[in-house]
Amino acid sequence: MVKGPRVYLDWNATAPLLDEARAAVLAGLDMMNPSSVHAEGRAARAALEKARRQVAALAGTPEPAHVVFTSGATEAANMVLSPDFRMGRRPIAVGHLYVSAIEHPAVREGGRFPAERITEIPATREGLTDPVVLKALLEAHDDASGLPMIAVMAVNNETGVIQPIAEIAALVHARGGLLMVDAVQAAGRVPLDIAAPGADFMIVSSHKIGGPKGVGALISRGEILMPAPLIRGGGQEKGHRSGTENLAAIMGFGTAAEAACAGLDERMARIGALRDRLEQGMRAAAPDVIIHGASAPRVANTSFFSLPGLKSETGQIAFDLEGVALSAGSACSSGKVGESHVLAAMGCDPKLGALRISLGATTNEADIDRALAAFGKIASRRKGTEAA
Amino acid sequence: MVKGPRVYLDWNATAPLLDEARAAVLAGLDMMNPSSVHAEGRAARAALEKARRQVAALAGTPEPAHVVFTSGATEAANMVLSPDFRMGRRPIAVGHLYVSAIEHPAVREGGRFPAERITEIPATREGLTDPVVLKALLEAHDDASGLPMIAVMAVNNETGVIQPIAEIAALVHARGGLLMVDAVQAAGRVPLDIAAPGADFMIVSSHKIGGPKGVGALISRGEILMPAPLIRGGGQEKGHRSGTENLAAIMGFGTAAEAACAGLDERMARIGALRDRLEQGMRAAAPDVIIHGASAPRVANTSFFSLPGLKSETGQIAFDLEGVALSAGSACSSGKVGESHVLAAMGCDPKLGALRISLGATTNEADIDRALAAFGKIASRRKGTEAA
Repeated sequence: MVKGPRVYLDWNATAPLLDEARAAVLAGLDMMNPSSVHAEGRAARAALEKARRQVAALAGTPEPAHVVFTSGATEAANMVLSPDFRMGRRPIAVGHLYVSAIEHPAVREGGRFPAERITEIPATREGLTDPVVLKALLEAHDDASGLPMIAVMAVNNETGVIQPIAEIAALVHARGGLLMVDAVQAAGRVPLDIAAPGADFMIVSSHKIGGPKGVGALISRGEILMPAPLIRGGGQEKGHRSGTENLAAIMGFGTAAEAACAGLDERMARIGALRDRLEQGMRAAAPDVIIHGASAPRVANTSFFSLPGLKSETGQIAFDLEGVALSAGSACSSGKVGESHVLAAMGCDPKLGALRISLGATTNEADIDRALAAFGKIASRRKGTEAA
Repeated sequence: MVKGPRVYLDWNATAPLLDEARAAVLAGLDMMNPSSVHAEGRAARAALEKARRQVAALAGTPEPAHVVFTSGATEAANMVLSPDFRMGRRPIAVGHLYVSAIEHPAVREGGRFPAERITEIPATREGLTDPVVLKALLEAHDDASGLPMIAVMAVNNETGVIQPIAEIAALVHARGGLLMVDAVQAAGRVPLDIAAPGADFMIVSSHKIGGPKGVGALISRGEILMPAPLIRGGGQEKGHRSGTENLAAIMGFGTAAEAACAGLDERMARIGALRDRLEQGMRAAAPDVIIHGASAPRVANTSFFSLPGLKSETGQIAFDLEGVALSAGSACSSGKVGESHVLAAMGCDPKLGALRISLGATTNEADIDRALAAFGKIASRRKGTEAA
């Protein structure tokens, strides 16, 4: 059934490791404990700080000290989504979390906020977090409980829709709130600058940009207002995150961050042309295909679509058997394929299955040809017509 | 000043990566997301579950399902040291944490317990957690607040002293409490069996046994009573620990766990002979050397000593300049050399500096010769006598 090697079009789940990141991981694997005082420890420390500068540059901050390494974006989200903050040593209460309905589960679960202190911000039919509703929510926020915290992702992981962060940041800051931006899917696809449009905190993940799994970062605009630590102990990362640093992975992350910034516009233009050809081909083969979020600004690598009559599970397995790896939304719940909360938030019928194709730096024309061939077979089979 | 290659005698801080663990990490680096449904995801899942079986074997449990992978032992400690447990879906309150005074900071900080709900269990002069005081504390425990939880390490990271876990487990279970055993320094040095002498939870770390940094595990005796998740999100690890699994590191950890179990007795006998020769040599060169915990049962690879008149910082730097990497206790606070809380708990003068030499699988006679030569120079210089 499968002709040729497999085609990997699930870059939003995890990106293949970059060669230069693999080399950095390998160098890091033989390094010792960055907290040790001896020469081996000092060499490890220097490598750690180099990676911190590289990740700071990815987030557009000139301050490496504003980068706290974590075990991934999920941990970073759980760390920053906290009712307990510190301004230096002074406790600062965060009273309520307002979270976009289309966030990744790692953010949508609300970290350390109890359920009764989390409110969802709805999305529009285009897949955009709704600033009008957010404005009303912020006006109704009760300051007695503490500051409002708002979590909106820069780019949605399922649709690729770019969120109106500048507009949201203006609303949040006019109200004296804190804005946390999940930049996991934006990193390496659009330029990031934590200061403009103005996130207070940003989270990023290594394995979505060609670095290794198991590492991410929380980046803060300043260094003074910080969440209470989630993981306490030996006092690493200036006390913000204890535990021996995952040095090899951090070095791979730093290298991938540098690569993600290099030639971004050109890379995304090339990927965007491939994605557009894919979507034209899908529309030609199945005019009833629905491409979600297509009317909104999107990153260039993602296509989230529904074929009426094709369930997510069935579609995913059918593409897999054709040698094409894609996904039914986010790959986050131990292989469970549930209904997409993103589609539900966009007002789509939750029974409508959807599939996500996501491209990356090494995706080529042949991959798109293979994906379109598989799409054509699966779309026609769905209608009861055997493919040629 | 330095003759020959450097001598690494700081295995308790981090162990050099095993060749077979490096190979496993390398294989894992190119794997995709274990939560993905496609063939690439299923291959990643299979590798993850193999490592889970290997780490289960390290902890002496026949149930791989009782292993939850974390970003390290520090995270595992923060996860399990929680006032909020679940028996299935039913909440179970843990009222108070009793923590040995000699625990690693990752445990001593008490995880998610507030300071007023943490009580220290003192240690004896030999460096043993005191069961007599623990018994009294347990008798005074107020059940109205919830169960008592007790945290005692299997082997102390500074002294190497083996703690009386069997005796402590009997006390804890007679009182209906939960026992958490930090087995980070015990793994690979003594055989582990979570069921006997009877820990309810055990934490282990990969990079202390020759695996990569950035991964550890929480191992539970059963699967029903579990702490509320520390990191929530996509629902990985059966909902106990969210975030894309750090697959490459986990595979390296699994491989190192298997190696740690293989030939353990023979390896530790060889290391113990080297350590004994080291201590005999130190005593001969400086009869006033104090070897901490030497009167208690110790693991075979650790020697924690004080030379009157030699500060920790000075000693550590002097050995480093002689090409010998050792440490002043735990390497956990970003290079800070503070007073040892372990020595203080043992009733030693907290101003007495101490140094830790810790050996490992590849330590050889020449390393001990070099360490003794450095020791001799440093000990005689301390007396104002220039070394020959």
